[in-house]
Amino acid sequence: MTKQFHGHTLSDDALDQIFNEARTYNGWLNKPVSEDQLRHIYDLMKMGPTSANMQPARLVFVTSEEGKTKLSELASEGNQDKITAAPVTAIIGYDIDFHEELPWLFPHADAKSWFEGDEEARKANAKRNSALQGAYMIIAARALGLDCGPMSGVDLDGITEHFFADQPRVKADWVCSIGYGDPDTIFDRSPRPEFGKFTSFA
Amino acid sequence: MTKQFHGHTLSDDALDQIFNEARTYNGWLNKPVSEDQLRHIYDLMKMGPTSANMQPARLVFVTSEEGKTKLSELASEGNQDKITAAPVTAIIGYDIDFHEELPWLFPHADAKSWFEGDEEARKANAKRNSALQGAYMIIAARALGLDCGPMSGVDLDGITEHFFADQPRVKADWVCSIGYGDPDTIFDRSPRPEFGKFTSFA
Repeated sequence: MTKQFHGHTLSDDALDQIFNEARTYNGWLNKPVSEDQLRHIYDLMKMGPTSANMQPARLVFVTSEEGKTKLSELASEGNQDKITAAPVTAIIGYDIDFHEELPWLFPHADAKSWFEGDEEARKANAKRNSALQGAYMIIAARALGLDCGPMSGVDLDGITEHFFADQPRVKADWVCSIGYGDPDTIFDRSPRPEFGKFTSFA
Repeated sequence: MTKQFHGHTLSDDALDQIFNEARTYNGWLNKPVSEDQLRHIYDLMKMGPTSANMQPARLVFVTSEEGKTKLSELASEGNQDKITAAPVTAIIGYDIDFHEELPWLFPHADAKSWFEGDEEARKANAKRNSALQGAYMIIAARALGLDCGPMSGVDLDGITEHFFADQPRVKADWVCSIGYGDPDTIFDRSPRPEFGKFTSFA
């Protein structure tokens, strides 16, 4: 039986940890992130919902000095030092042929057939759902006491070519550093919209 | 000073609530969701990071009988009853002209100028970042003891035309019911990939 949590709100501390006090860091403490921590992040993020459980995200965890140097060369000037200083930067890519995996990822139905022959629909689904997965990754990392620094100021074609060379149907979409954020490297939090500004009822 | 949570992992119960035991529901208990709850969801999700704090998501919370009937008519057959039974279904749209809001959303820099005259870049950013925001919405709802049922089997053009008629630069991208999930309406959880299947190191 599935556990349900109806009417139960996480503690204020937990909400602070994953949303209210979590920040995007521009610099990192000199403290490593282990493979076990990355496994734990992935094992949480993969539980988040994607359409037909398609799980189109393909991740490269850049942890080696060589990988960081290469990735930083493919980032905008303002992002280069962030990447070399971070213990890990994840590249979030998406697989345009994710539907090949659906027979085992979504055994309830012949979901593969829904996407065959329609590359445009696959691209739209792969982009949307891999972005969801990236957001789950950010929340999962925060839930484990880590911080994130997502970035889209990077050369996506160059990153695709270098880091997904062995996966010709995968395209890089954005990158996200993971580590222990240095509190001296953040600015004041940017303003957030009031409820009603970008929401309505129907 | 920003609160930090380095090395602090959320409790197993909290991780179960937002990831491990949370499920996508196909049916809903007859129990309302209040406007205060939707405000709380929004006030959490808006704290999640978006590129240059662009916050491109535009949400319509469909709560009226009339709205639900119309939205269900614009959904695939398998999704119609889910929408009429749910207390709320959120339409997640994105604003292609989000950059007009950047002078107040991102006061640190002239971020509006980065996007002027490049509608393709704005579309890619709006889609990616509104998807992140939708994922934050799902986690926020779960963190408050609610369940979600995201769906992409809908007529996006029809929904855009009807529900964003007053916002010509906004496009609907997917929808997500919010409520108290009926545990009798879920199947076995679909398989999840092992670490290493869709991840690698560099």
